[in-house]
Amino acid sequence: MQSFKYDIPTVLYFGKGEVSSLKQELEGKYKRALIVTGSGSVKSNGIYDQVLAQVNKAGLDYKELSGIQPNPRIESVYKGVEIYRKDGIDLVLGIGGGSVIDTSKAIAAGAVYDGDCWDFFTRKAQPKGALDVGCVLTLAATGTEMNGNSVITNVVTKQKLALCTPYIQPQFSILDPEYTFTVNRYHTAAGIVDIMAHIFEQYFSQTEATDVQDGIAEALIRVCIKYGPVVMESPNDYHARSNIMWAGTLALNGLIGLGKESDWASHGIEHELSAIYDITHGAGLAIIIPNWMKNVLSSKTVSKLAAFGVNVWGIDAGKDPMDIAKEAISRTKDFFKSLGMPVSLKEVDIPRDMLEEMADKAIKHYGQVGAFKKLNKQDIIDILNSAL
Amino acid sequence: MQSFKYDIPTVLYFGKGEVSSLKQELEGKYKRALIVTGSGSVKSNGIYDQVLAQVNKAGLDYKELSGIQPNPRIESVYKGVEIYRKDGIDLVLGIGGGSVIDTSKAIAAGAVYDGDCWDFFTRKAQPKGALDVGCVLTLAATGTEMNGNSVITNVVTKQKLALCTPYIQPQFSILDPEYTFTVNRYHTAAGIVDIMAHIFEQYFSQTEATDVQDGIAEALIRVCIKYGPVVMESPNDYHARSNIMWAGTLALNGLIGLGKESDWASHGIEHELSAIYDITHGAGLAIIIPNWMKNVLSSKTVSKLAAFGVNVWGIDAGKDPMDIAKEAISRTKDFFKSLGMPVSLKEVDIPRDMLEEMADKAIKHYGQVGAFKKLNKQDIIDILNSAL
Repeated sequence: MQSFKYDIPTVLYFGKGEVSSLKQELEGKYKRALIVTGSGSVKSNGIYDQVLAQVNKAGLDYKELSGIQPNPRIESVYKGVEIYRKDGIDLVLGIGGGSVIDTSKAIAAGAVYDGDCWDFFTRKAQPKGALDVGCVLTLAATGTEMNGNSVITNVVTKQKLALCTPYIQPQFSILDPEYTFTVNRYHTAAGIVDIMAHIFEQYFSQTEATDVQDGIAEALIRVCIKYGPVVMESPNDYHARSNIMWAGTLALNGLIGLGKESDWASHGIEHELSAIYDITHGAGLAIIIPNWMKNVLSSKTVSKLAAFGVNVWGIDAGKDPMDIAKEAISRTKDFFKSLGMPVSLKEVDIPRDMLEEMADKAIKHYGQVGAFKKLNKQDIIDILNSAL
Repeated sequence: MQSFKYDIPTVLYFGKGEVSSLKQELEGKYKRALIVTGSGSVKSNGIYDQVLAQVNKAGLDYKELSGIQPNPRIESVYKGVEIYRKDGIDLVLGIGGGSVIDTSKAIAAGAVYDGDCWDFFTRKAQPKGALDVGCVLTLAATGTEMNGNSVITNVVTKQKLALCTPYIQPQFSILDPEYTFTVNRYHTAAGIVDIMAHIFEQYFSQTEATDVQDGIAEALIRVCIKYGPVVMESPNDYHARSNIMWAGTLALNGLIGLGKESDWASHGIEHELSAIYDITHGAGLAIIIPNWMKNVLSSKTVSKLAAFGVNVWGIDAGKDPMDIAKEAISRTKDFFKSLGMPVSLKEVDIPRDMLEEMADKAIKHYGQVGAFKKLNKQDIIDILNSAL
């Protein structure tokens, strides 16, 4: 185990009706919020009104920014920053999934920066502060509700890049599993793949003796495997939605990655896919992950992939480790398929054309891609080719 | 899963040499610390000097309170409060194990209270604030380094009672696994039992669909079972000490008990034992827990105890659940024994005399004892009798 600092200050209110806790987080602390929302579903399903009732009870003034798209754009962030400059706000309150929350966090950092906040994503500049961020989550997927990450797309430069800074860690998040009841099958499934991907990126590591972290990671993956099919069939199953939602938060609040080297190759490669082709992040990950696993499998990595097979998939530990690892990869792919996710580029109409360009860009944007196995350009091309 | 609030603000620095992070937590934030220590081992093994170097670098003045005993006394807390009243301090910095840190936390609450702070433990009064608390941990056991609990003994009234309030949650804690290398076999073992007990108290619950919490709990117990024997044989094994230390913190920082009803019967009963007989808390728990498990095992609880047997002890899931549960109980007791812990009252010279009085006191102090099974006085007498 490596040394680490644990600092996860976000306060969570988890459970049915917990939106009622919002007032106490707002009252006396803030004066004017910027409320950020997506395509309008929170307005039609009543969640927006519930939040607004709390904002009003707490006596806050507010401004609005709506219409945030999936794979959210830097232009939306600029709009939020403009509102801050014109009207002044002291809290960015996102109501939605990862795209809305990531936009809210980027606005919070951009507001207190004089330059172009895309600089934070290209690493030309580092944030030195941010407005406070609050979050009402409506999709279990990205873990953004409890971390300092924001992923934003620049359609002009065809870049999808991440900002990671403690300044944008939400002060509080409301997690009501009932708010995810209305998420459709496709996005529910993509969310589950995203959660599993976050766990994989931290679980598969060469760092020794991380039993605590790995045991927690395995438990969270098993939760996805158990409850994923349940929420697909019974979207209003509160217990299943609760477990998926809580697993999604713990998958990327930092806990399971503490004290070990993380990988993030699948995310790096997928970000190049969705930057160009605007596919759903979870769908892209479902295509990349099994092919990444095949690429990294070797005598150096087999023990970890075999442990994954035994502890997560319940494969007989007496079998040959290489066979266990291969079976685990195949079961992971089958699981994604069973959720209705694509598992090849063909299924999402991505042709062979730009594979090399995407590999180039991944290397350019991330420097070293991967850590469990350090990938070179040819590895990335091979992964994309085997995903065709 | 029940609703919950997650709010764990303590910042941790975990790893070899992390005492060097102390300066940044002190500098500019505090002026005068009260340094609390135990019987002197931190002075002979050099830890105290390392901490003091940081305190000096950060430019803090300090006062000292040393000699805190195991099963720490309210008189020690009074002494700390006196120092605050005479000299003024703005941080209580504990260097030691659970007894030292619990005393530090009680002083922090008592300092800003006009009355007798024993009132907090008897629940005559509630804290309304506290001084800041920092912690340099030297024993993996109680989890006090990341929670709002303090357990203090009153030898006059023969009471050992707990205070639980967010006000005394440490602002920061330093966890260096090397600082536990010199802990002797007996206290290392007692610490491991204490960690496992904390997990059991939260794991065994009637709350439905707590897969996330239970999977994490099982992972932490497996860590204790894997690394417990390693640290007994190789006390300087860094990886083993790291896993035990990190498991100990996560066992009682709140995480695994969120969203479910906890039990705490074994702790309630053990506190009566150690209040009267001054035995080591972990040793008392090793005696009580297997007998508590036997007492609570019924058709209502068998599924959970069987899951424990399968997921933690690796017992064949195809066996009869009642047989699995009994085997799991017997393996738990054997494990405690293998660590050199007592598993009967006789081994620690506790006679039959006061069993009924202890049962009475447990009921008196805790109201309802237990939740997984609600224990009555006769249950507690039965548990103590079967532990003779």
